[in-house]
Amino acid sequence: MVNETQLSCSASSSSRSDGGSSSGSESSKDNSRCSTPVLDADRHERLREKMRRRQDAGDKWFSLEFFPPRTANAAVNLISRFDRMGAGGPLFIDVTWHPAGDPGSDKETSSMIIANTAVNYCGLETILHMTCCNQTKDDITAHLQKAKRLGLKNIMALRGDPSGEEWEEEVEGFNYAVDLVKHIRNEFDDYFDICVAGYPKGHPEAESYEADLRHLKEKVFAGADFIITQLFFRPETFLKFMKDCQAIGITCPIIPGIFPIQGYHSLRQLVKLSKLEVPQEIKDVIEPIKDNDAAIRNYGVELAVSMCRELLDSGMVHGLHFYTLNREVATTEVLKRLGLWNEDPRRPLPWAVSAHPKRRVEDVRPIFWASRPKSYIYRTQEWDDFPNGRWGNSSSPAFGELKDYYLFYLKSKSPREELLKMWGEELTGEESVFEVFTCYITGEPNRNGYKVTCMPWNDDPLATETNLLKDELEKVNRRGILTINSQPNINGKPSTDPIVGWGPSGGYVFQKAYLEFFTSSEIVTALLKVLKKYELRVNYHIVNVKGQNITNAPDLQPNAVTWGIFPGREIIQPTVVDPVSFLYWKDEAFALWIEQWAKLYEEESPSRMIIQYIHDNYYLVNLVDNDFPLENCLWQVVEDTFELLN
Amino acid sequence: MVNETQLSCSASSSSRSDGGSSSGSESSKDNSRCSTPVLDADRHERLREKMRRRQDAGDKWFSLEFFPPRTANAAVNLISRFDRMGAGGPLFIDVTWHPAGDPGSDKETSSMIIANTAVNYCGLETILHMTCCNQTKDDITAHLQKAKRLGLKNIMALRGDPSGEEWEEEVEGFNYAVDLVKHIRNEFDDYFDICVAGYPKGHPEAESYEADLRHLKEKVFAGADFIITQLFFRPETFLKFMKDCQAIGITCPIIPGIFPIQGYHSLRQLVKLSKLEVPQEIKDVIEPIKDNDAAIRNYGVELAVSMCRELLDSGMVHGLHFYTLNREVATTEVLKRLGLWNEDPRRPLPWAVSAHPKRRVEDVRPIFWASRPKSYIYRTQEWDDFPNGRWGNSSSPAFGELKDYYLFYLKSKSPREELLKMWGEELTGEESVFEVFTCYITGEPNRNGYKVTCMPWNDDPLATETNLLKDELEKVNRRGILTINSQPNINGKPSTDPIVGWGPSGGYVFQKAYLEFFTSSEIVTALLKVLKKYELRVNYHIVNVKGQNITNAPDLQPNAVTWGIFPGREIIQPTVVDPVSFLYWKDEAFALWIEQWAKLYEEESPSRMIIQYIHDNYYLVNLVDNDFPLENCLWQVVEDTFELLN
Repeated sequence: MVNETQLSCSASSSSRSDGGSSSGSESSKDNSRCSTPVLDADRHERLREKMRRRQDAGDKWFSLEFFPPRTANAAVNLISRFDRMGAGGPLFIDVTWHPAGDPGSDKETSSMIIANTAVNYCGLETILHMTCCNQTKDDITAHLQKAKRLGLKNIMALRGDPSGEEWEEEVEGFNYAVDLVKHIRNEFDDYFDICVAGYPKGHPEAESYEADLRHLKEKVFAGADFIITQLFFRPETFLKFMKDCQAIGITCPIIPGIFPIQGYHSLRQLVKLSKLEVPQEIKDVIEPIKDNDAAIRNYGVELAVSMCRELLDSGMVHGLHFYTLNREVATTEVLKRLGLWNEDPRRPLPWAVSAHPKRRVEDVRPIFWASRPKSYIYRTQEWDDFPNGRWGNSSSPAFGELKDYYLFYLKSKSPREELLKMWGEELTGEESVFEVFTCYITGEPNRNGYKVTCMPWNDDPLATETNLLKDELEKVNRRGILTINSQPNINGKPSTDPIVGWGPSGGYVFQKAYLEFFTSSEIVTALLKVLKKYELRVNYHIVNVKGQNITNAPDLQPNAVTWGIFPGREIIQPTVVDPVSFLYWKDEAFALWIEQWAKLYEEESPSRMIIQYIHDNYYLVNLVDNDFPLENCLWQVVEDTFELLN
Repeated sequence: MVNETQLSCSASSSSRSDGGSSSGSESSKDNSRCSTPVLDADRHERLREKMRRRQDAGDKWFSLEFFPPRTANAAVNLISRFDRMGAGGPLFIDVTWHPAGDPGSDKETSSMIIANTAVNYCGLETILHMTCCNQTKDDITAHLQKAKRLGLKNIMALRGDPSGEEWEEEVEGFNYAVDLVKHIRNEFDDYFDICVAGYPKGHPEAESYEADLRHLKEKVFAGADFIITQLFFRPETFLKFMKDCQAIGITCPIIPGIFPIQGYHSLRQLVKLSKLEVPQEIKDVIEPIKDNDAAIRNYGVELAVSMCRELLDSGMVHGLHFYTLNREVATTEVLKRLGLWNEDPRRPLPWAVSAHPKRRVEDVRPIFWASRPKSYIYRTQEWDDFPNGRWGNSSSPAFGELKDYYLFYLKSKSPREELLKMWGEELTGEESVFEVFTCYITGEPNRNGYKVTCMPWNDDPLATETNLLKDELEKVNRRGILTINSQPNINGKPSTDPIVGWGPSGGYVFQKAYLEFFTSSEIVTALLKVLKKYELRVNYHIVNVKGQNITNAPDLQPNAVTWGIFPGREIIQPTVVDPVSFLYWKDEAFALWIEQWAKLYEEESPSRMIIQYIHDNYYLVNLVDNDFPLENCLWQVVEDTFELLN
């Protein structure tokens, strides 16, 4: 359950001057000279600096709490929820620590791996919870080391559940959250940003509200950077708590924990765990409608919105932390009504960045993984350097092999039965494969009435940008040019363009037209003849599964196909077509035919053999039209090819 | 005299397989896959590879021989001749070795320093001659080491003059050019490309023509990469020699030395030194016109053109080597008539590149030194790395100080008297300074009837590109916006554009509008108010001599102001406005007021005090309009500033 660890853990405390975060504040002042403070700074600042900068800018934010899933399937769903909710622009998410769920292990349901996935594969600033009671120093240090290695930068330091009914101090162990804070600062210096829990009503086990405040101050003075509070039901509860904290000298950010009531049972469960009392005015509303889930959720949303508004209007609150219970609807609704949900968050780069600190400078990637960024991140996770500024000939260290296509964060969101409905229970020939590609492009239902919303090379429906090419794509797919990646040419659109824009505002973005597809050797033969006419204009790379490959790329140099010009900046060129990495991508692209599609069918079945035939005999082709200011000539290239064939 | 060393030196010989140059040829085959073979390869290939590639491509070329000057003033003139003749596109130049002139020293007239200047400051592929007789091994090794350190990559290995009248072998010394070739290969392995001399008529001291050919073969087999011949008067002389060389197994390139007859006396002098006989048919023409220099030169040009045509038409000759006698007219005329002079050589980058091997990758520079590339090269000569791809915040190592503004290769081509005529024998106030700037822009004569063809910040007349801004520049200079650097905005012109184009063909070049000027503090105050309106559009940097400085550059990041998009390449962004290096430039820009202008006048004179006042009180301003697709707003900024002042 959300926050269960936090709810049931004791408030410990500590002491620390605010030196650390004030240096953060200074550096964010420097950064505020930057013309694009949010987009760029986001990748370089630590969480406490981001918080401080948003506060200085009067910019409200929100964060989202999740708990680790119980099953592997739930992990797949949670990761795609991260992607969807991440699109709304949370400042961070946090993942609770499940002592019972082997939280530091490599299991796909562990807190550690879920947080790792959020940071590295979803690009989300993430806080990993960690509890300390009933654990040895060595265990804790090992967890922290692992977290650091995985690129996690923030820890929520908690005591955790006592092992017995009654709390007993261990002489040598960690008894309070403050011990964990001190330990992190001792062992890891200033590496981690540390968050601690605050209890607006006082911790249920504390001697008194005042004593609990003193414990909180100790935690802050021991090195915590900010506080997230337990949930509460009335805004004045939080505001009083905040004033009381300030009165005793706690100056770090204090973020209210918001719990939108989503159902009768989850509320009761939470109340039991947190030992909080639900105010009578809320009980009065809820009891009569306790069997009407929708009514309760609506009420919960109303209540949360009005409480959040009051908090924000107080001028004391800059960010709101949501206990999502791993659900999307209520929290998203509240955020949208508050105007905090950023429907169209500006993309800092055209692709989804990873939040691992070592990838901070990464700003160039090959276009091939555009629809499979998680696979790209996985295959480059061992890299020590990331291309920065230019891809270069030398920036092609070996890509890791993609052996396990079923890694939960690379896996299709759709189960086998659904994929069969989309891609065909039974294939009758290459044409039925063409049909699947065509339906994916058009969005029309296939012959059995099912919409094709994903493909082995793209787990999501067609990108808005690709929609610009829809008519042309439909035509060529029907005839066996099976497209898996494409982009239109763009000759200087504003960087704020809702479809193709990215990067800081005030800039201009550009693209060369790109088309990547599988096709038969017959078509390739004709295509190569046609390409001779376009030799100076079109770069091509044509390869089959055996590695036979034909290209006119000069000196195997990368070709920049997306770039942006911004005020006061050097050019940013985040996407290249690189002949060297194309050969790594080729293996993955061909393998997806088998791993994701052929294996849906029985061995030796005609359907499987059709896919196997395509895998063995088709070519993977990429084409770049270098003349971005002119009309895209790639459709003409394909048209000429079909003409030659007729 | 041109080639005097070579003329009088004995033909020595050696042996070596052609392995070295055949590996060169292989690598040039790789490079020939490049879509822009000449422009890019030029910076990465060694001379023998360039030669081979041009030959394979059926591309004829020429080279130019110079001798070191006798005086410092002549050195200034020779360097500007290198710049002018370099613009015609020679494959290389060579500088003869003057044993009498302390050729390896640091004097500005030494062979070593002239060759160094040609390579580093003029960006010319250069061969340094070197003679070996009467020198110790250690001397020679020291010369070679120095040459290598300075970035010289090619040596013409010669014997040199005997010390007495008669040739005497030294037992331990170097007696023949072949000894020098062997020594270079022993001590420096394959670092240098080595050239040796060939004698189409046989060396005058050789026992026989055949013996001389054998000596030549020995030189080649000892490690020489190619041969340049002594001059000759009839094409058949060379063609026979070439066939004879091939017959005995010499396969390396043999380049005919062409001597356009430029005057009666220089011809006689040369004939005496080289012990060559002038054919009767030439004597018959020359003797009657021996006092008519123009007639002799015309005849010499005719003769050279017809001989060169015959050589090129033979199909055996791919390059022509010209003995220029340090003169421009005749050689340039011959080259133009042969169609070899490349009037509009494609610029690989918008600025003049240096040919030092360590600067091979350099492709970004701050815009400030656009008119003073030699000063930029001088101030960065100690750098070990050069920015490549992006300037970056970290690419700002310390610039060397420019202490000696009178270094011969940084010095104004014009003597003091001429500068005074241009810039005013006597200044009457700041306005008379405005007038000088205005005359430089308009090309109109100043009040004393002299054209202002250079300024302290620019030793050449206005660039063609700046001419695009002429009217606007004139207006603002008249009113005290004293411009020293500017470029128009360019929104995607073809890279082959004769005025603003650069880089490989098939690309598009872009620029942000840039304006840099000195102006009074009164104007700066108004300007700053106006710039508030343009905050998001215009980046500015304003600084005075004391270092007080005001900028809105985000995070002190560089701003790319010139970039190009090419087929199959990453983006190239060769020019940036970098706030950090601007502070280094500022020192130089202010110092030029004093060093080049104020010091023309007596101390305490009113003219000197006017310049000193400007130096002490004016600001140096640079402005970038980031909105390159829109009309340049910088003129409006200046207009608004003047309006505010009125």
